[in-house]
Amino acid sequence: MRIKCTVSYDGSRFNGYQIQPNSRTVQGELEKALAKMHKRKKVQVVASGRTDAGVHAVGQVIHFDTNLNLPPSKWPMALNALLPDDISVKNAMLVNEDFHARFSAQKKEYRYRLYQSSCRDVFRRNYAYHFPYRLKVQEMKEALHYLIGTHDFTSFCSAKTESENKIRTIYEADIWEEDDEMIFRFVGSGFLYNMVRILVGTLLEVGEGKRKPGELEQILEAKDRRFAGKTVPGNGLYLWKVYYGDEN
Amino acid sequence: MRIKCTVSYDGSRFNGYQIQPNSRTVQGELEKALAKMHKRKKVQVVASGRTDAGVHAVGQVIHFDTNLNLPPSKWPMALNALLPDDISVKNAMLVNEDFHARFSAQKKEYRYRLYQSSCRDVFRRNYAYHFPYRLKVQEMKEALHYLIGTHDFTSFCSAKTESENKIRTIYEADIWEEDDEMIFRFVGSGFLYNMVRILVGTLLEVGEGKRKPGELEQILEAKDRRFAGKTVPGNGLYLWKVYYGDEN
Repeated sequence: MRIKCTVSYDGSRFNGYQIQPNSRTVQGELEKALAKMHKRKKVQVVASGRTDAGVHAVGQVIHFDTNLNLPPSKWPMALNALLPDDISVKNAMLVNEDFHARFSAQKKEYRYRLYQSSCRDVFRRNYAYHFPYRLKVQEMKEALHYLIGTHDFTSFCSAKTESENKIRTIYEADIWEEDDEMIFRFVGSGFLYNMVRILVGTLLEVGEGKRKPGELEQILEAKDRRFAGKTVPGNGLYLWKVYYGDEN
Repeated sequence: MRIKCTVSYDGSRFNGYQIQPNSRTVQGELEKALAKMHKRKKVQVVASGRTDAGVHAVGQVIHFDTNLNLPPSKWPMALNALLPDDISVKNAMLVNEDFHARFSAQKKEYRYRLYQSSCRDVFRRNYAYHFPYRLKVQEMKEALHYLIGTHDFTSFCSAKTESENKIRTIYEADIWEEDDEMIFRFVGSGFLYNMVRILVGTLLEVGEGKRKPGELEQILEAKDRRFAGKTVPGNGLYLWKVYYGDEN
């Protein structure tokens, strides 16, 4: 039986999602909990994608195969009882064997939180990026228009990106203010390594007046990482939702 | 010169406020930062009061004496540069030598955060108490009336309380809902050891219908800790503000 779960985690104390030896990872903790339920047998967990150290997830999606005879509705409680308190399984459902957390994903939504108070805030230090400088929000919103659509995002990904194909589609991109925070939201077909963080870093340079909104077009055309802005820290980034076309 | 500072800290990774050997404490970190600024000379920090392990502060107040010739407005930046990222000095001012962070305090405000989502929330695990049960808010608000005023709070403090005098005045007490959270607010002349946490624990029993609001009166009269409710966890508690009568 294949089980699909939505998982939330606070990335602060993880060395990223992907399992690696001698490191605390989300996948490592999930597989440890599953092994306890399966008489110490290894159960491989497949996620929609990795997240880096410090990056959070509100709606990461995973799947795994099991022969345990547990009703899907019982999985969250069973797993949460065995998981550390910074990972939480929000829901679980039975899916067909052809469902794949990574390959069946149609769209992903990421959000980035920035806070602008003049003083740093101890309660947000792990959850939002402190950026106490004035930003021209209208210009940033204008810049978003150049990102929406299908583009080669080579300029907006880390040189470490493994994917050959750098073409992705951004379906939706928004920026809004909430109290002293600025929230960035991107919905796309997929995101390259560090892509959201470089997009936000570049948009901040537009907001600071260091670049014109129209420059986004030239940066995309350049297909060169050096043309885009800085990579903002991972602590403000949230994998918000993964879409499989089965919503509602 | 005596300097008064407002300090905020995330209590999650501290073993409480008060300095103790081989333990990470807020006072310890503050005195370490001050020693660095004073050629390794010990500078004693006096706070409005202690907070327990896991308890947070939005507006703790401290004072210390210094012979450094630094304008008060420069102290926050100077100290923040030397402090760990879970303590932040929000502001500093020069005060008279007769100001004392503890003895000059006239009122203190504490808040307690509860969250009621059915699923636990990894992002709030250190910042609010997860209480997913239905609560009768009106009855809880009614119970607050019995607490306001000057009372002997023996029933509402830990047996470990050192103060002989258990009489305190609660000036204001409120409860309100914000999204899926319930916030408790108490302004009082002072609070005994664990007092806010026992008050909240008792009010929750009223909210669950296990006690009638009027029982609060009898619990106060009993002057016996065993008559009150459970002590709720420290992670939802915030020392919100200390009043010195010089506000505005």
